[in-house]
Amino acid sequence: MESLDYCDPGFTPLVVLELTSETKEEAIGWLLRRIRDLQQNGGDGDSFLSMAECQYIIKHELDTLRARDETHVPGYTEVKLYPGKSIIRRLQSKGILIQLFPLHEKEELKRLSFSWYKKVKLSFQPLDDIRHYYGEGQAFYFGFLEYFTFALVPMALIGVPYYLFDWEGYDKYVVFAMFNLIWCTVILELWKRYSASLAYHWGTLSRKKAFEEPRPGFHGVLGFNPVTGREEPIYPNAKRQLRIYLVSVPFVLLCLYLSLYVMMIYFQMEAWALSVHDDEPTFWAGILIFIPSIIYAVVIEIMNLIYRYAAEFLTEWENHRLESSYQNHLVLKVLVFNFFNCFASLFYIAFVMQDMVLLRQSLATLLITSQILNQFMEACLPYWLQRRRNKKMINRVRKRRTLEDKELPLVEQVRLEADMSMYLGTFDDYLEQFLLFGYVSLFSCVYPLAAVLVVLNNFTEVYSDAFKMCRVFKRPFSDPAANIGVWQLAFEAMSVIAVVTNFALIGISPQVKAYFSDSETQLILWTVAIEHVLLAFKFLLAFLIPDIPKHIQIRLSRLEFESLEALKKKVEQSAENLTYFLK
Amino acid sequence: MESLDYCDPGFTPLVVLELTSETKEEAIGWLLRRIRDLQQNGGDGDSFLSMAECQYIIKHELDTLRARDETHVPGYTEVKLYPGKSIIRRLQSKGILIQLFPLHEKEELKRLSFSWYKKVKLSFQPLDDIRHYYGEGQAFYFGFLEYFTFALVPMALIGVPYYLFDWEGYDKYVVFAMFNLIWCTVILELWKRYSASLAYHWGTLSRKKAFEEPRPGFHGVLGFNPVTGREEPIYPNAKRQLRIYLVSVPFVLLCLYLSLYVMMIYFQMEAWALSVHDDEPTFWAGILIFIPSIIYAVVIEIMNLIYRYAAEFLTEWENHRLESSYQNHLVLKVLVFNFFNCFASLFYIAFVMQDMVLLRQSLATLLITSQILNQFMEACLPYWLQRRRNKKMINRVRKRRTLEDKELPLVEQVRLEADMSMYLGTFDDYLEQFLLFGYVSLFSCVYPLAAVLVVLNNFTEVYSDAFKMCRVFKRPFSDPAANIGVWQLAFEAMSVIAVVTNFALIGISPQVKAYFSDSETQLILWTVAIEHVLLAFKFLLAFLIPDIPKHIQIRLSRLEFESLEALKKKVEQSAENLTYFLK
Repeated sequence: MESLDYCDPGFTPLVVLELTSETKEEAIGWLLRRIRDLQQNGGDGDSFLSMAECQYIIKHELDTLRARDETHVPGYTEVKLYPGKSIIRRLQSKGILIQLFPLHEKEELKRLSFSWYKKVKLSFQPLDDIRHYYGEGQAFYFGFLEYFTFALVPMALIGVPYYLFDWEGYDKYVVFAMFNLIWCTVILELWKRYSASLAYHWGTLSRKKAFEEPRPGFHGVLGFNPVTGREEPIYPNAKRQLRIYLVSVPFVLLCLYLSLYVMMIYFQMEAWALSVHDDEPTFWAGILIFIPSIIYAVVIEIMNLIYRYAAEFLTEWENHRLESSYQNHLVLKVLVFNFFNCFASLFYIAFVMQDMVLLRQSLATLLITSQILNQFMEACLPYWLQRRRNKKMINRVRKRRTLEDKELPLVEQVRLEADMSMYLGTFDDYLEQFLLFGYVSLFSCVYPLAAVLVVLNNFTEVYSDAFKMCRVFKRPFSDPAANIGVWQLAFEAMSVIAVVTNFALIGISPQVKAYFSDSETQLILWTVAIEHVLLAFKFLLAFLIPDIPKHIQIRLSRLEFESLEALKKKVEQSAENLTYFLK
Repeated sequence: MESLDYCDPGFTPLVVLELTSETKEEAIGWLLRRIRDLQQNGGDGDSFLSMAECQYIIKHELDTLRARDETHVPGYTEVKLYPGKSIIRRLQSKGILIQLFPLHEKEELKRLSFSWYKKVKLSFQPLDDIRHYYGEGQAFYFGFLEYFTFALVPMALIGVPYYLFDWEGYDKYVVFAMFNLIWCTVILELWKRYSASLAYHWGTLSRKKAFEEPRPGFHGVLGFNPVTGREEPIYPNAKRQLRIYLVSVPFVLLCLYLSLYVMMIYFQMEAWALSVHDDEPTFWAGILIFIPSIIYAVVIEIMNLIYRYAAEFLTEWENHRLESSYQNHLVLKVLVFNFFNCFASLFYIAFVMQDMVLLRQSLATLLITSQILNQFMEACLPYWLQRRRNKKMINRVRKRRTLEDKELPLVEQVRLEADMSMYLGTFDDYLEQFLLFGYVSLFSCVYPLAAVLVVLNNFTEVYSDAFKMCRVFKRPFSDPAANIGVWQLAFEAMSVIAVVTNFALIGISPQVKAYFSDSETQLILWTVAIEHVLLAFKFLLAFLIPDIPKHIQIRLSRLEFESLEALKKKVEQSAENLTYFLK
């Protein structure tokens, strides 16, 4: 790293590879040669690319740097290399390469953070700047967060009078559930349109995904890709399916069972707390009632965290060829467990115990506890750790500076950023929003204040997420994206589950039961019939609202039309030339 | 038409325009000039195109032949023309152009019909030949018909023992309904894959639909298309929406009400027949019981026919810009009414009257009567009319032949075909299959023999449809297609309705009711819960089965990859040339 001291001052550093301090010279030389080989074959950043795009290209080239005829890493005979194995991956797993990360650009970051979260007046986020600095993936997350928060405002506004005036007649229940249903569908459809506009604006809407390179961790026997004809690792799909269905699926089911077990312990605690309160209704016993819920909420968060690591390990082991396929399998695993873990107890209270008071109390405790925990785990804790590290670093640098009396901004910056925590992608952020969406859409009929809490949470979330992106974490590699991907599907699935749940809640609410007091069968049949009609209506609505706004659609068609016309002209010209030549 | 006598013997006629016999010379000259203008701008059939493709191109060019500065048709001052109005359409509506149709090719037709329906031994249909002669649209219909018939065989095979041995325990009901559910989903998903293979084989899979020309009947103020920048009629979307929601939708609802009214009359007739039978249970009274169902079935067919014309008129009046949009609106209108008209009485019997014996009897009568009527209306009647006309024609030609003693094969053929009935597209054929699919999937739980009847019907349907295409109707213009279009969606919607209906049938079946005799609520809740799980499973299944088979997907990706590589090379070459030039 000391070599940085002597480099050209006009040089802008983009990506840092941190090797262990004892790395042998041979290995460094070899790695540099292999990387320079790449450069000759193209991949050098052009000046019209944004910094994020250059970093993405370098990342891509490094990821696809695979061993050819080398049997081992030069200087390390014990670190074997097989043809087609990712070199970077190998170096990383053997601890020679410690990390690989892009550098922050201090001036731009300052500008961005000012317009993003340091301003006093409320305004929309600078999505274009975020996209320019962090890439489309990040920008889409912040765009979605902002959109979702604003979309929640009507729900929150309607929720307040419902909560304050205890509107609990069956007719008001039905009205609120209907509103919830239409709201869920419409906001997701409108998001699709807004997202298409953003992607069009950023030039990623028509992005082709066909030639995705195999992901860095992918391994297999070297063979030929049937599409490109290029040499790359091949792993039989049947083997992967076996791993998924014989190991991953049973593991997930086991975890779900465990989660159920923990839930039952929670209910026992709850019953005990209630019995204590009933025996001696003191102030402290009143507070004791909330304790089991709080403990349960903490346990849920811990279980989610542990499961997350297990899911990552399993999905890695399934050896998916494409990053997108890996992501889809990981998201599916984590979603199913998180959904179950967070909402199972609420469903149990609602439909098995049918205790609406406990449901409301439990929902409120879970929601508030998980929000507080999340904000703490996401931003405060890393910030505090970071600050401690920064201080140490700055002190050390200051000492050196006084000794050598020379400015070392680049080395200093690289050292600082190398010590920052790694940002693990938008996964957890989306997951949090997904669960919040679940709390609002599934049970807001019972606890209309949920939307208000989520809106408040999200207002601070925007700031804390922006802050952690700019100050707490290493700069992440940008990833081009045309939409929020599999999360769109996840949110849509949740909105369907929400319709069913809301109708079931209406069906078991005492107010509605009282109305149909003479025949329970009639009540259920009516509820089910209306639910089916509304589900059909929901699908129709999603079908009728076009996914891409008209003006974008016209521009896309025009682009395609013009390229076709240009092709036609080209063909005509060639034909003319040919005629001329034949004469 | 007499001018055909003197034409070049090497000339192959493709499309015939029949004008009234008193058409003025001026108008003929003008029309020919306008058509020849087209020819100069391209559109002349190349030799590597199939005959069906040439005919399609000519049709397309004629359809888009629009008036420019002509104020009226030359020779007909009363037939006004406005810029942008379709000329062919105008001539047709004013009765100057009687019809426009492609000619059969006698040799090829003979070969095709032999391999299609004249062979004695059973075999698959020659789909490639059908596609070559009639185009992809027709070939897809026959492919679907064949596929659907084979797909029904397992249902039919399972249905027979269910029917014969009166398997009516609740467990067997549930097993049959489950089988039905999985069957529906799987056959539709597999069809998508098969259809993709066919389309790939025929080269229409990646067909772009973006630059569809406005349909011939479309009218509006002349303006500029925002995509192509070309002059074409513009009609405001808001106006169309008003027509749809203020006229078409109320009209459809009125028709549904009427259909309900007719249904009620049928039930009164049914009740009366039953009371007669109960008073005097003679043989004739036993037959009388079936009479109301038969009459009702005939009335349904007549109502469907009348409604069909009304729907076409209305959709035409809605003035859709694209043929596809016109088709979608027409299909939706007709489907909703036909579904309601055919199945409302069955739903009423099943869920309001809860009379399973009547349901079974009613279903059988409706199914058999409509099958017989359809076969008669579709093939027998037109064939018989056609035969009478042909005989007259042949007699007349023979007379002439003896007089002039000269062979006139072309004029004779054109005259014969001009008199044939017009084939109105695959709409009615798909609609019939859709309704049959409904009978099987909705109620086969109650009447397991339905699938057997449909299989038998479809075996003859293949032959009668092939026969009518080759012998009864004028050759239709071919239309390129990549799939069965909106019908895929219609069949999928039906399969969802089928799941709900089957579960409702299980819920009300006496066997299941007896099992849950102590609590009706429990029964309904279980039924609804299982239904929801299965619906979710169905959507998951549809999601998990890829729509395009792997090997086709690989070939498509390779194609795209190769074109991208070629583009890269081209760019590199240009850069090299530029460098060379600059030196």
